[in-house]
Amino acid sequence: MTRQVVVIGGDAAGASAASAVKRALKRDVKVTILERQRYTSYSACGIPYWMAGQVDGPDRLVVRSPEEHRSRGLVVRTRVEATAIDTDRQIVTARDLTSGEEEVLDYDDLVIATGATPVRPPIAGIDLPGVHGIQLLSDGLDTLESLRSNPTHAVVVGAGYIGIEMAEALQQRGLDVTIVDMAEQPMRSLDPDMGELIASEMEGMGITYRGGEPVQAIEAASDGRVASVLTESASIPADIVVLGLGVQPNSKLAKQAGLPTGQFGGILTDDHQRVEGYRNIWSGGDCVEVVGKLTGRRMHVALGTHANKHGRVIGANIAGGDLVFPGVLRTAVSKVCDLEISRVGMRQSEAEEMGWAVVSAVVKAHTRAHYFPGSGKIRVKVIAEKGTGRMLGCQIVGMAGSAKRIDIAATAIWNGMSVEDVASLDLGYSPPFSPVWDPVQTAARKAAGMV
Amino acid sequence: MTRQVVVIGGDAAGASAASAVKRALKRDVKVTILERQRYTSYSACGIPYWMAGQVDGPDRLVVRSPEEHRSRGLVVRTRVEATAIDTDRQIVTARDLTSGEEEVLDYDDLVIATGATPVRPPIAGIDLPGVHGIQLLSDGLDTLESLRSNPTHAVVVGAGYIGIEMAEALQQRGLDVTIVDMAEQPMRSLDPDMGELIASEMEGMGITYRGGEPVQAIEAASDGRVASVLTESASIPADIVVLGLGVQPNSKLAKQAGLPTGQFGGILTDDHQRVEGYRNIWSGGDCVEVVGKLTGRRMHVALGTHANKHGRVIGANIAGGDLVFPGVLRTAVSKVCDLEISRVGMRQSEAEEMGWAVVSAVVKAHTRAHYFPGSGKIRVKVIAEKGTGRMLGCQIVGMAGSAKRIDIAATAIWNGMSVEDVASLDLGYSPPFSPVWDPVQTAARKAAGMV
Repeated sequence: MTRQVVVIGGDAAGASAASAVKRALKRDVKVTILERQRYTSYSACGIPYWMAGQVDGPDRLVVRSPEEHRSRGLVVRTRVEATAIDTDRQIVTARDLTSGEEEVLDYDDLVIATGATPVRPPIAGIDLPGVHGIQLLSDGLDTLESLRSNPTHAVVVGAGYIGIEMAEALQQRGLDVTIVDMAEQPMRSLDPDMGELIASEMEGMGITYRGGEPVQAIEAASDGRVASVLTESASIPADIVVLGLGVQPNSKLAKQAGLPTGQFGGILTDDHQRVEGYRNIWSGGDCVEVVGKLTGRRMHVALGTHANKHGRVIGANIAGGDLVFPGVLRTAVSKVCDLEISRVGMRQSEAEEMGWAVVSAVVKAHTRAHYFPGSGKIRVKVIAEKGTGRMLGCQIVGMAGSAKRIDIAATAIWNGMSVEDVASLDLGYSPPFSPVWDPVQTAARKAAGMV
Repeated sequence: MTRQVVVIGGDAAGASAASAVKRALKRDVKVTILERQRYTSYSACGIPYWMAGQVDGPDRLVVRSPEEHRSRGLVVRTRVEATAIDTDRQIVTARDLTSGEEEVLDYDDLVIATGATPVRPPIAGIDLPGVHGIQLLSDGLDTLESLRSNPTHAVVVGAGYIGIEMAEALQQRGLDVTIVDMAEQPMRSLDPDMGELIASEMEGMGITYRGGEPVQAIEAASDGRVASVLTESASIPADIVVLGLGVQPNSKLAKQAGLPTGQFGGILTDDHQRVEGYRNIWSGGDCVEVVGKLTGRRMHVALGTHANKHGRVIGANIAGGDLVFPGVLRTAVSKVCDLEISRVGMRQSEAEEMGWAVVSAVVKAHTRAHYFPGSGKIRVKVIAEKGTGRMLGCQIVGMAGSAKRIDIAATAIWNGMSVEDVASLDLGYSPPFSPVWDPVQTAARKAAGMV
């Protein structure tokens, strides 16, 4: 009999897993994707650039459409939502969102890739028209609809990656933009000394940053649409509000079926992406918790790069392979206008809270040889374990050519290198690309003198 | 008594070593640099960009002038050449190139950082006026002098890094440029399938590449200046000739003093950069041989990045420290016009010649998310050991944002990672910076399916 694989969710993790299984097992498998939306395999990370008008959307953000998946032998059911999983009988119940009809699908292997949803804290007015999370392509369409009425004032709640990217996008569209965040500095995934560089860059762009101001309520105008954002100290005019408060795993369906979830609400899997306690149920992408390689602790990190790797691992393992997902370092890159931002591993503050003895070194350097045209400023912070010198974290803020240097630190931390080892690495040098010491090495070298 | 350190050569390795010793030992040491040229601590790698008119020279290429070194407490003697070393009596004899006077300096520690000289093979006409090597700032001044007579035709002999960079520079100055090389493809540090991409890019720029044509002679015009370059099949007009045939270590002084040199003519040191067999003589930079981390074999790799690291290691060790230089992976980055080029580790052909069983994977990808403005083509080749999957080499050719990705591979190879491990790495992803799989990972993933 043909093996039946049912995949709930047709974005990065789900569609990757489905494609990998089909490619491996071909006619010996029937793979069915159930997807709530009209779209499959799209880039959520591209939505801010679509909103900014830099990228066409939504079709351009789709990596592989339902039709393309079908032409590769997958069964793709869009606008179909899985409503229940029965792990004993190995069936999934699903509802067609257009017709309302229900159906039941048998599975030999089940893949849960239900993604995540923007966090909407329980404050008054959070669900007003004109308040938008940014996750689905439909969120992008809704936001564009709000922008069609030519709003003047935008408030972005939360200064993480999506928050600052959306702030830039709205500012590029000519809106007057304010970011409000509970924390004093934007980008809490960086230490405050690095985060403040981003605050001042945003101010230079004309974006107002209001730190240390938790949002208390969102208020409506007489037409029922959003009108202002209230904090303890101000009422900030807002014709449109964008939420950049992170996302939470869509794990309700899994929970209802009795599958294990963790403290961040994500589905729990082993390193083969098998749901804990289940032989034939797999999960990956934004709906699962991942393990931090440095701490061994579980966390929730919603990123397409992990989702795609999960999909590859799940697909290979369903097909009889033996691939693992070894964990994450919370590597992230972003930009605000000309300023590039990246980080990996532990923040200084975080390491200290966990009781690790650490040193940190910050250096100012250049992205290219000092004399080379286009050489820009770059600041690099390196965090290392005291005594051993093991590199634990790195943060970079700087001009063009800065951000992806984080990959050096990510690869070094992944391998447990000491800062002295990093200073010895044979990295690429040529005046158009780097000073003779790569700035990551300059910071590592400085830290090596302190451990 | 104040300890005496004499440093022969005031460029990257020598000046770095001198500065590090002085910084560590302060008033307890007298550090004297002997430098043949007028300049110290300059960027030889910047000369092609100075020739192209992209960078001012020669002063702009100087990282630290003799005066700046002096203000930090170093004794710097420019236009002074060391002529003999007596290791028994611990003295260096030196001649002032301006006055002709000789003097003798005692040393407790000696640092030999005499650099390298462009290779000039023994062919007729190689020393004609208008034939230039590119290594010293004075070579740059001489080349500019040749360019002042508005030459029309330039021939570059050798299609390595300096060769292609100088070809671009001369082409940007409006000359008609031909590169001649013995090998069929340019850039022999890459495999031929990657090198041919560079040949076609150069052709597109209007640079003629003549591969498989060893130079037989260089001929003069009636005025005694260079006029043409002769190969087996052609006489190529040349008002100026640039040699890009690599460099050879300046180790004659060391050899005459009985110090050990290797098969490439470089001074032999241990991993602390101590000259083999000598307690208090150190050497680094372009005049030494280095050890390849993958093969354990000695080789000669003249690069500022190694020279600076040697200097740091020597300085620390003279001051009582215990730093090592662990070896090289032959990482290199360069560019021809818009095309970026980089490589690390072993070529496929080289691994096969050494009898290693390897697989290789080549992928075509994009530098950014496919939909992001400015996303350009990138081609990545990964070489891995059959069976173990250990990554052995990587080569990259592509548009802006391609070259420095080699650092991921360099750090991975340094740590002995397998291609499957590399495919699992947590690297930075965001649409302006990368596809969701970094192209290096895409190639590693493909190779992982082949080992």
